[in-house]
Amino acid sequence: MSVGIVQEQTVTLNVDLRLESGRILGPITQVYESYGTLNADASNAILVAHAWTGSAHLAGRSFEGDTKVGWWDAIVGPGKLLDTDRYFVICPNVIGSCYGSTGPASINPKTGKRYNLTFPVITVRDMVRAQALLLDHLGINKLVTVLGGSMGGMQALEWGTQFPDRVASIIALATTAAPSPQAISLNAIARWAIFNDPDWKKGEYRKNPKDGLALARGIGHITFLSDESMQSKFGRRYSAKDGFFDFFGKFEVERYLNYNGYNFVDRFDTNSFLYLAKALDLYDVSLGYESLHEALDQIRCPVQLFAFSSDWLYPPYQTEIMATVLKELGKEVEYHLISSPYGHDAFLLEHETFAPQLSGFLEKVQPPGRQKL
Amino acid sequence: MSVGIVQEQTVTLNVDLRLESGRILGPITQVYESYGTLNADASNAILVAHAWTGSAHLAGRSFEGDTKVGWWDAIVGPGKLLDTDRYFVICPNVIGSCYGSTGPASINPKTGKRYNLTFPVITVRDMVRAQALLLDHLGINKLVTVLGGSMGGMQALEWGTQFPDRVASIIALATTAAPSPQAISLNAIARWAIFNDPDWKKGEYRKNPKDGLALARGIGHITFLSDESMQSKFGRRYSAKDGFFDFFGKFEVERYLNYNGYNFVDRFDTNSFLYLAKALDLYDVSLGYESLHEALDQIRCPVQLFAFSSDWLYPPYQTEIMATVLKELGKEVEYHLISSPYGHDAFLLEHETFAPQLSGFLEKVQPPGRQKL
Repeated sequence: MSVGIVQEQTVTLNVDLRLESGRILGPITQVYESYGTLNADASNAILVAHAWTGSAHLAGRSFEGDTKVGWWDAIVGPGKLLDTDRYFVICPNVIGSCYGSTGPASINPKTGKRYNLTFPVITVRDMVRAQALLLDHLGINKLVTVLGGSMGGMQALEWGTQFPDRVASIIALATTAAPSPQAISLNAIARWAIFNDPDWKKGEYRKNPKDGLALARGIGHITFLSDESMQSKFGRRYSAKDGFFDFFGKFEVERYLNYNGYNFVDRFDTNSFLYLAKALDLYDVSLGYESLHEALDQIRCPVQLFAFSSDWLYPPYQTEIMATVLKELGKEVEYHLISSPYGHDAFLLEHETFAPQLSGFLEKVQPPGRQKL
Repeated sequence: MSVGIVQEQTVTLNVDLRLESGRILGPITQVYESYGTLNADASNAILVAHAWTGSAHLAGRSFEGDTKVGWWDAIVGPGKLLDTDRYFVICPNVIGSCYGSTGPASINPKTGKRYNLTFPVITVRDMVRAQALLLDHLGINKLVTVLGGSMGGMQALEWGTQFPDRVASIIALATTAAPSPQAISLNAIARWAIFNDPDWKKGEYRKNPKDGLALARGIGHITFLSDESMQSKFGRRYSAKDGFFDFFGKFEVERYLNYNGYNFVDRFDTNSFLYLAKALDLYDVSLGYESLHEALDQIRCPVQLFAFSSDWLYPPYQTEIMATVLKELGKEVEYHLISSPYGHDAFLLEHETFAPQLSGFLEKVQPPGRQKL
C-alpha cells in the first residue's frame, strides 16, 4: 500500500556547525519527509539515507495526481519492507544537496547571496552530524536502523561509528569504506567536464551549465550500470535515425547517456553535484582514526551489509573487507552478496531479492511488540 | 639489441579506395617504419599493427641522441621476440591517424584544405585494406604474421578474415570481436567532451581544443588502467600541494589524468582522435556476415589470442568467445589468459610473460630455416 500524499517538512536550526574541515556552517536548513507515526517513546524511527542526487522524497506522491512516486517507494509503506504501520520512517535531504537543505545554491544569510563556491567542502560525516541535530529537534534519541545505499550506505556507516549510542542497527547497501582511485577518477572526469564548461563561470552561473553537467551525469550513468546490464539494455544497437557511417551517428547507449544527461540539467544544481561528488570521493570511514579497525570498532550495534555482484563502482570486495574487519572485531555483522546484473543501481532494483534478509535482520533488532531500543 | 636509428618511409598511392561506407578515399598516403631485411622471396615479413593513438614508430630511435624509443621497442630488434635478424618487421601508421598517413588533418588534394569533418568515417577494415595496398606496392604478398593489441588486434582479425591468403598466422592481444556497449559508452563520453569544447568548432580549429581533448584522453587512461593498478599506483593519496578540504584539491590519480591529458594535446590531432574512436566503436568482425561464426570461418591460418585478466575495456570473456567459435569451426587456435594487474595496458607491459607462448607459436608457423610461407 502507498503512503499516499506526503508533504515535505522544513526545519531551520540556528546553529554553528563546526565541519570536519574546521569551517563553520550555520544556520542549517534541513528538509525531510516522514511516513508512519512516531510512537510515544520515539522508539520506532528508521532513517533512510539517500544517495548522491537523491532527495527527501523517499515514498508516496507529492500532490493529488502526481504521476511519480518517491525514489524508493517500493519498500516504504503499510505492509511493505519498511512497514509504516509499525515504523516511523524519516528521510532527510543531506546538506550540500539542492533539494531544500542548506547547500551551495542556498542563500548565505550573512551575505544575502548564493553560497556558490564560498560554500564549505562538506563530508558525509558532516551530513550525518546535521541529521543528528535534526533528530534532536524532533525528539528522537535513537533509531531502530539507518538504512541506505551508495552515499546512503556511507551515512549508515557514519551513524554507526559517530553515534554508536543512537542506532540500534545499521544497514548499508552497495557502499564502501572509502572509494577506490578508479571510482574517484570517474568523478574527477565528471568534475573536469563541468570545469571545462565556460557557462559554469567558477560556480557563478545563473543557469546550469548544461553541456558540462549533462556530460558529468552521463559518466555517472556508466558507473551506475554494468557491462551486463548495458549489453541486455542496449547491446550494440545503432540509432535508427542515424546512418551507421555518419560522423555524428550514435549508438543507442550513447543516446541514452545524452538523453538522461540533459534531463538531469533540469533537476539538479551543478554546484551541489560538485560538492556531493567531492563528499563521495573524500569519504573514508577511517578519517581521524588510525585504521579501518579502529574506525569500525566504534560501532556497537548489529550491522547488515549488502553488495551486488555486478557493482563495479563499489565492488563487493570492498564490502567484504568491512565484513571481515567487523567479524575480527567480534561485532554482530551479516554480509550478503546479491547476484544481480544491474550494477550499482541494483540496490534500488533488487529489493525483492534482499527483502527476506533485510526484514529478518530488522525482526532481530526490534522484535514485534518490543518497543524499547 | 636495438634496431638503432630508423627513418620512417612515406608512400602515396594514387588510388580511389572504396571504403566500407561506400565513400571514396584517395590518393592515400601511408607512413611506415621497417626493421630487418626483406628476404629475396619476401617471405619473412611481419606486420605489427598499432593501437588508437600509436604510430609507425614501433622500435628504435628517430635520430642520434633521441631519448625515446618506439612504442614497442622491447619486442623488436636483433635477438628480440620479433627477431630482426630473421624477420622483416613493418609497422604502418593507420589511415585516419595524424602521424603521417592520410587522415582528417591531411590536406585534401581536391580542395587544397584540411579534410577535417569532410573526411569519411573509416573502419578498421578500411585501414587494413589500405595496408594491403601498401604491401602490394612493397612486393609483399604474404605475411608470416600480423600482430597487434587493442585496435592492433582488430587489424589482425581483419587481416585473417579479409585477406586469408595473405597471412600465415595472426596474433591478437587485448582485443575484441566487437566492443561492448560499456566500452562504446566510455568513448562516447570522450567524444562528447570534445564536442562540448567551443574551441573544437565542429572540427575547424586551428589549434587543438585542449580542454576537450585532454578530458577525452583522461577518460581513455581510466580504461587503459585497472582498479588494481590504480590502487597500487595512486591509492587514495592526496596531492601534497592541495588542502584536503579545498574545493579544487586533487587526488593523485586526478592529477595524473590531468597531466597526461594535457600532455596528449601536444601530440595528437583532435579530429584524428575522434575518427579513430569511431572506428573502434564501429568495429565488428562480423560486419557484412550473418554471424560471428561466418566471419571467423573466413580465417584459414593459425590464430593466437591473448587476453589479460584485469583488462576491463576488452575483458577476457570477449576473447574467449572468439576462441570458442574458432575451435568449433575446427580452426587452429591458441588462447592464453595472462594474469596481470595492468588492465588493458598489459599487452604493452607483459611481453616477458607472454614471450614464450608467442615465440613458440611463431616457431610453429615458420620453423627456422623454412622460408616458404
